[in-house]
Amino acid sequence: MLKWPEKVTIKEVGPRDGLQNEAKEVPFEDKVAWIDLLSETGLSYIEFSSFVHPKWIPQLKDAGKVASSIKRKQGVTYAALVPNRKGLEAAINTHVDEVSVFMSASETHNRKNINKSIQETYPVLEEVVKEAKLEGKTVRGYVSTVFGCPYEGDISPDHVVHVSERLLDMGIDELSLGDTIGVANPGQVDQALTDWKHQLPFDKIAMHFHNTRGMALANVLVSLQHNITTFDASLGGLGGCPYAKGASGNLSTDDLVHMLHQMGIETGIDEEKLKEAARYIQRVLDKPLPSHQMQMMNKERV
Amino acid sequence: MLKWPEKVTIKEVGPRDGLQNEAKEVPFEDKVAWIDLLSETGLSYIEFSSFVHPKWIPQLKDAGKVASSIKRKQGVTYAALVPNRKGLEAAINTHVDEVSVFMSASETHNRKNINKSIQETYPVLEEVVKEAKLEGKTVRGYVSTVFGCPYEGDISPDHVVHVSERLLDMGIDELSLGDTIGVANPGQVDQALTDWKHQLPFDKIAMHFHNTRGMALANVLVSLQHNITTFDASLGGLGGCPYAKGASGNLSTDDLVHMLHQMGIETGIDEEKLKEAARYIQRVLDKPLPSHQMQMMNKERV
Repeated sequence: MLKWPEKVTIKEVGPRDGLQNEAKEVPFEDKVAWIDLLSETGLSYIEFSSFVHPKWIPQLKDAGKVASSIKRKQGVTYAALVPNRKGLEAAINTHVDEVSVFMSASETHNRKNINKSIQETYPVLEEVVKEAKLEGKTVRGYVSTVFGCPYEGDISPDHVVHVSERLLDMGIDELSLGDTIGVANPGQVDQALTDWKHQLPFDKIAMHFHNTRGMALANVLVSLQHNITTFDASLGGLGGCPYAKGASGNLSTDDLVHMLHQMGIETGIDEEKLKEAARYIQRVLDKPLPSHQMQMMNKERV
Repeated sequence: MLKWPEKVTIKEVGPRDGLQNEAKEVPFEDKVAWIDLLSETGLSYIEFSSFVHPKWIPQLKDAGKVASSIKRKQGVTYAALVPNRKGLEAAINTHVDEVSVFMSASETHNRKNINKSIQETYPVLEEVVKEAKLEGKTVRGYVSTVFGCPYEGDISPDHVVHVSERLLDMGIDELSLGDTIGVANPGQVDQALTDWKHQLPFDKIAMHFHNTRGMALANVLVSLQHNITTFDASLGGLGGCPYAKGASGNLSTDDLVHMLHQMGIETGIDEEKLKEAARYIQRVLDKPLPSHQMQMMNKERV
């Protein structure tokens, strides 16, 4: 028989990674009410917004107001993305438990996304990580396009190790490795995790899969077999794919939790409360969410 | 590193299992043209129709006409479903290479679907298998609801073995084990295949997964690790789920082939020609097909 971990931690990125890729802006009050519903599901981690300039992501321009309005549930880490020192200051002036920094494993994607080369990005993030640590915050580092880039194609696992080590050396507490465009296949994930096993600290690694080609749960399964126990997901599959408008994007929290529970793997999350939160944001966005769990629920109601 | 087979056989069930679950009837000429496109993809097996009474499945009432009108491609097995002796005779009067018989592992599902108890079904199928063999046809046996039934819930792996052995004893050449309602999870598939390994001949087994809850490719992955090398699939995810109208049904041939090829597993199928065939039937049905490959293609065209 195959082996997988008994417990898995799911990090909800819907309010940030999900909403920033939705065309419709969610009203502030709905956002807060939705995050409060998420806090009641048993999730231990919610990335609630991003302190980037509203020019880039207008959907999340109310990050500070959201931070000070949500009900804090004990045991839940409330995190926000920060692109630079200015974002970090804004985040710290509110109430965040953890901040996330981000960069890309692909030179071209990094330039298009952050407007800097990878080399130029390191000192910026280093400063943010250092400052955040001084303020007593934990820090998460996102590395995107680790399995492939829309501009460069394949990304070598060795290169991902190089970028990851730089971030770990800065003192980040967790590394989230992202298949930003959903190209990873189970064979590639198996190969990469086999390579990374002796190079990266697996207890500090989260995998961040997108379901663009339907392989996200299969990739999770391979990761579980390599003893990865932390996964990012977005409720209802919220967010879509920024590189193929309308196609599936983020792995759905509800589909992931359902599979794990069916496999007897604990997550601490209540599936019914998760559905309640998904129904809420679906109503606000006024469009059917793409997760299989939501598809099934929506069809029952027809 | 994980291990999987180097080659996989995919059996296309779209023209039968797909179309029988579509509300819209596909015109005869389009059906033939579509099957002819499928024959050019490199698929080695196409279940092209079903010889059941048109009262039950009007969408496939032209089975005989289709059988005599499609272009036979060398190396492709053209198969049709037959429910009983009458169906078999109709099939043999046309041109079929293989016939499929079917029953359910669930007593209630079998009664609702075939209007007979499991015990009453055996002699009917036995007669069909015997007659088909006398006519020189190979025979495939479908067992449905092997991982769960919409009426009875869980189905025990031992019970599946019992039903399967009866069919194998009749002389069927291949057994297709179906997760008819798409409830199977990777843990359950792992457990069942571990149990079945010493009880059933794996070289005669095909797995037939539905993607209702998004787990089909993950279940394929587990099956590959148990050295299962034959899978049923339906192009574009055609067919939907008969128990949750509009939700995902059959595993998509195009998503499956894409994953396998990306993993370096051979199928003999040309992905571009598969897409061409999918676009054709999508145009005829006049609605977007649900596979991820088709979703991505449709979005690019918007």
